[in-house]
Amino acid sequence: MLIVMKADATEREIADVVRVITEMGLRPHPLPGAQRTAIGITGNPGSVDTSHFENLPGVAEAIRVSKPYKLVTLDLKPEKTVIKIGDATIGGDELAIIGGPCAIESREQAFAVAEAVRRSGARFFRGGAFKPRTSPYAFQGLGEEGLKILAEVREAFGLKIVTEAVDEESVDLVERYGDVLQIGARNMQNFSLLRRAGRSPLPVLLKRGLSAMLDEWLLAAEYIMSEGNYNVILCERGVRTFAQHTRNTLDLAAIPAVRRISHLPVVVDPSHGTGKNYMVTPLARAGVAAGADGLIIEVHNQPERALSDGAQSLTLEQYDHLVAEVRAIHEVIAPAPVG
Amino acid sequence: MLIVMKADATEREIADVVRVITEMGLRPHPLPGAQRTAIGITGNPGSVDTSHFENLPGVAEAIRVSKPYKLVTLDLKPEKTVIKIGDATIGGDELAIIGGPCAIESREQAFAVAEAVRRSGARFFRGGAFKPRTSPYAFQGLGEEGLKILAEVREAFGLKIVTEAVDEESVDLVERYGDVLQIGARNMQNFSLLRRAGRSPLPVLLKRGLSAMLDEWLLAAEYIMSEGNYNVILCERGVRTFAQHTRNTLDLAAIPAVRRISHLPVVVDPSHGTGKNYMVTPLARAGVAAGADGLIIEVHNQPERALSDGAQSLTLEQYDHLVAEVRAIHEVIAPAPVG
Amino acid sequence: MLIVMKADATEREIADVVRVITEMGLRPHPLPGAQRTAIGITGNPGSVDTSHFENLPGVAEAIRVSKPYKLVTLDLKPEKTVIKIGDATIGGDELAIIGGPCAIESREQAFAVAEAVRRSGARFFRGGAFKPRTSPYAFQGLGEEGLKILAEVREAFGLKIVTEAVDEESVDLVERYGDVLQIGARNMQNFSLLRRAGRSPLPVLLKRGLSAMLDEWLLAAEYIMSEGNYNVILCERGVRTFAQHTRNTLDLAAIPAVRRISHLPVVVDPSHGTGKNYMVTPLARAGVAAGADGLIIEVHNQPERALSDGAQSLTLEQYDHLVAEVRAIHEVIAPAPVG
Amino acid sequence: MLIVMKADATEREIADVVRVITEMGLRPHPLPGAQRTAIGITGNPGSVDTSHFENLPGVAEAIRVSKPYKLVTLDLKPEKTVIKIGDATIGGDELAIIGGPCAIESREQAFAVAEAVRRSGARFFRGGAFKPRTSPYAFQGLGEEGLKILAEVREAFGLKIVTEAVDEESVDLVERYGDVLQIGARNMQNFSLLRRAGRSPLPVLLKRGLSAMLDEWLLAAEYIMSEGNYNVILCERGVRTFAQHTRNTLDLAAIPAVRRISHLPVVVDPSHGTGKNYMVTPLARAGVAAGADGLIIEVHNQPERALSDGAQSLTLEQYDHLVAEVRAIHEVIAPAPVG
Repeated sequence: MLIVMKADATEREIADVVRVITEMGLRPHPLPGAQRTAIGITGNPGSVDTSHFENLPGVAEAIRVSKPYKLVTLDLKPEKTVIKIGDATIGGDELAIIGGPCAIESREQAFAVAEAVRRSGARFFRGGAFKPRTSPYAFQGLGEEGLKILAEVREAFGLKIVTEAVDEESVDLVERYGDVLQIGARNMQNFSLLRRAGRSPLPVLLKRGLSAMLDEWLLAAEYIMSEGNYNVILCERGVRTFAQHTRNTLDLAAIPAVRRISHLPVVVDPSHGTGKNYMVTPLARAGVAAGADGLIIEVHNQPERALSDGAQSLTLEQYDHLVAEVRAIHEVIAPAPVG
Repeated sequence: MLIVMKADATEREIADVVRVITEMGLRPHPLPGAQRTAIGITGNPGSVDTSHFENLPGVAEAIRVSKPYKLVTLDLKPEKTVIKIGDATIGGDELAIIGGPCAIESREQAFAVAEAVRRSGARFFRGGAFKPRTSPYAFQGLGEEGLKILAEVREAFGLKIVTEAVDEESVDLVERYGDVLQIGARNMQNFSLLRRAGRSPLPVLLKRGLSAMLDEWLLAAEYIMSEGNYNVILCERGVRTFAQHTRNTLDLAAIPAVRRISHLPVVVDPSHGTGKNYMVTPLARAGVAAGADGLIIEVHNQPERALSDGAQSLTLEQYDHLVAEVRAIHEVIAPAPVG
Repeated sequence: MLIVMKADATEREIADVVRVITEMGLRPHPLPGAQRTAIGITGNPGSVDTSHFENLPGVAEAIRVSKPYKLVTLDLKPEKTVIKIGDATIGGDELAIIGGPCAIESREQAFAVAEAVRRSGARFFRGGAFKPRTSPYAFQGLGEEGLKILAEVREAFGLKIVTEAVDEESVDLVERYGDVLQIGARNMQNFSLLRRAGRSPLPVLLKRGLSAMLDEWLLAAEYIMSEGNYNVILCERGVRTFAQHTRNTLDLAAIPAVRRISHLPVVVDPSHGTGKNYMVTPLARAGVAAGADGLIIEVHNQPERALSDGAQSLTLEQYDHLVAEVRAIHEVIAPAPVG
Repeated sequence: MLIVMKADATEREIADVVRVITEMGLRPHPLPGAQRTAIGITGNPGSVDTSHFENLPGVAEAIRVSKPYKLVTLDLKPEKTVIKIGDATIGGDELAIIGGPCAIESREQAFAVAEAVRRSGARFFRGGAFKPRTSPYAFQGLGEEGLKILAEVREAFGLKIVTEAVDEESVDLVERYGDVLQIGARNMQNFSLLRRAGRSPLPVLLKRGLSAMLDEWLLAAEYIMSEGNYNVILCERGVRTFAQHTRNTLDLAAIPAVRRISHLPVVVDPSHGTGKNYMVTPLARAGVAAGADGLIIEVHNQPERALSDGAQSLTLEQYDHLVAEVRAIHEVIAPAPVG
């Protein structure tokens, strides 16, 4: 169920509705919007009578929700969510650029890349400390040591840190050192991890699973939001198809598809989405042209020596060129209306 | 095998090499390039000795080709092929826009759409007279009557006509009335039809099959070229995947992938590539941003009454808006270098 | 529309209904069943009033059909179609085994394989004279010469010949020399070829397209039947997926899925369905266990020297072993009921 | 690296080699085989010299392993692994049948189904207490209460309990109440969970991910084995493709593909693999015919009232019929040789 408050409802009236919902043993999710606040209700509200709410002061409407998702949807919040991370944003007017190496390998590597990322005007730095690898014998990341280097990068360059957690323990650590918690494609339906991320104070960047349907992806976001964390950024990173000229097939139709249903921002990862250096820049341009709110790009100061994903990492020069091109495209397209 | 002529080779020297090849029972395919002419050889040249050619006047090099394709490849022609259709081009500096209805339904409909297409500055008009339909009971197109309407459109608006043929008989008719012969996705590996198209004087727009690998698509083009028709335009129109939010999954990584191997131009069909009206414009923008040489777009004066593909057809207003946006994007991206 | 005749309707009554339909400008498709004859109607019967037929002598019922297919469906014919080819059958109690090489390469090769096929008790011999090949430079089959060898095989061994046609011209030739006309996966939506096959006196073995949905496959059969040829055998031969351990992914769920909708028999091609010698026998067993009416198997007397598809061809010994195993499985499973 | 001991090596010699490996800071994985014991080595043995081992008493050979997997492979253990769970086995001569409801809903339901499963002669009972559900609002299982019911089923019927864990906490609980620990498809690359399962005393049934390549699936097993748990059962449960007549596409070619590389047993889940009641029995037969070591089947006493997956659950009668058919097929096929 969904309670739409009147445009002139007071803070007090909103708080009263929240209290009534809580007292019924249900969970209220108040989301303030540009025109009015709406309050999603979860916790089996199937049997709840709308008349319980319709007569409360400040309530405009109580609506039954028949869709499987309740909180990700434009029904709850018609305008796009803008995620604020310090003085930077994702989902607002500015194109969000998240650059950095696949994995943090050393302080030197991280600083060399971070300098280029900062110089490009990007506000976010990516780098993995916990790497989910297909083989148990492959480099698994530096762990907490890597996170400490990321924290130093934040200090030195003023960049916000986006980094992946793979289990409860690593979520604890990312909360200590990072700014945005990344959930990887292979964990998109690790529901225990999603619930834990839903109790985190950090915004969550949720990658689409390798063969996730649109509904499954949105419901993974719903898992996070149902625990009270409403700051979810969706990330399209390519899906698995028969095609072999590309590592994954970047599904840019997912951007307008998400936008038609959800208020959450969407960024594109052309590095994993293609797996090939020479495809990253054209597909980054395409992602922005399709209406993405941002990009996440792998850059390395020495791609040929990268411990992981070297084949798809850009050189610093290629990265600079990419940023200039996508900014120019972002400027010429009309702001994509929500819905 | 591939014969590379010297930059200063004369017409006569080229003609002599062509003659020698023919006399050996093989087929020569001379393709003039910006710097020099190269001559592909087909017809089981496996056993031919390179020294047969290396000493002929004007020959720079004779190269064995180990790849499955010989004529589509940058080895034969390092710069992109520009297809000339009257005073219009595909593959050159200008973005080629091919607009029109899915099927020609009537003179009124065709003229109403053609007027908008012409007004937008596009040079090409599309419209099907022979429609390959999944069901034998669905509208199959107006046939020759449709082609006559298309010929009238050319007269009245000066647009070049792009239209599909589905068998030998319809190729004959398209050659009489049209400017560019389209081979549909379902016929991409109809090898008899490809050979027939290879003997046509018209350029061929070859759609990618629904689950075609890159190699299969390029080899389909090679079938056409091996018969002597070197004017092939590739068209990415989405592939079949598990995703259900879109009718097909538009694979824009195919654009840089083709460009890395082949000199042939590539256009994108976001209408069939998505199957949904609201996705066409963002994906058209994405296609151009990824480096496409052009777009093929379904427009209808009354999409809700279209006899086929109404769900994906743009209104005239949406089409105008799309053309403005893609032109702006085309201007800001640096010309994509071949290779 | 579908006219169901009474169980005791006379030949004359049936002929009268057929005549009435024809006089209305529509096309009647009478299909005799075990209990009663039904008559499908095609040719835009959308606007026809059922009362035109309900009062004719011998008519039990006139039913509007809302599904896209009219003739392939169990509504028209509730019991499975048994295709008779001389004294052999496909779709009846006996498991149909179609063995032979991918391509006819020589008389010696064909006879060596045919002897083993005959010895195994199989009734059908396969072998391609026209090979649709991905590359224009690959071996394309012996053409009519190959068909002549096939006709000799029929004479010498009493095997029925199953062989592919790729265009109108080759259909003419297959009709002269063969017993069952095969339409390949790449031509499943070559609608002109389907219509031509629909006017052939030969039964048609219709392979599923590489990425064909169930509906598309059944509607391809409908194209053939709508022209008056009701002897269609469906063939599952694997679909294209992300998996790389197998050339195609054999979709055995298609067998019960077809059976639930259609009266047409289904055979399985584990040779193309896997592309690997060591997988053919286990998947052939699986196909029969899933309820297939038959198998089409590539066998070669010298697989390592095959001009095409050697990697998936069985040796004569492997083939013998396969036949014994699948016969044993066919005996233990209860006859799968239709519907 | 891989150490192959001589056929007559003593326990003492094996223990000595294990000690030497441990002292080098590496991890030994001794796997006894029918002919001889082999010892896999993990923990960056890249730089280890084979001569360290070749001269130790009892060592036949020291082999460098270039494949990404070391422990799952036939190189380490040429004969199939037989997993022993009390007096029952998976991977041996007997066909392993694992029957039960999708989720444990109540003691009554579990007992009604368990009685039928026991009566069929099956040795294993499945039932979920922790259900990974796409929506956060769907029934998530009874948790520990469900496990207690499963423990009662074991007591009452002597069936071994196969049940899923979704995180570290639920692994602890499954270890307390269950016999086989199931890892679901969505967690196949939840590497933290795999490592935890690798430290469990219970055998692990590892479902293939929805779009897992063969290598990824085997490497997920390798994650478990690299922690010291060598009792891994692979489970094919269908992959995601474009097909829509079935919930997933059951990839039975995976069975011979796994067998060619690995000694681990493989079972098939035709319930999730098809998602449709009427497909379960034919595909179960097909799985056994393709060489599966067992089946995992959803059965419910009242499928129409099931809280999850009712559409694919068999009735008790259908289940009985299935068991009889698959046993008959298992008897007629020759035992599939390893390799």
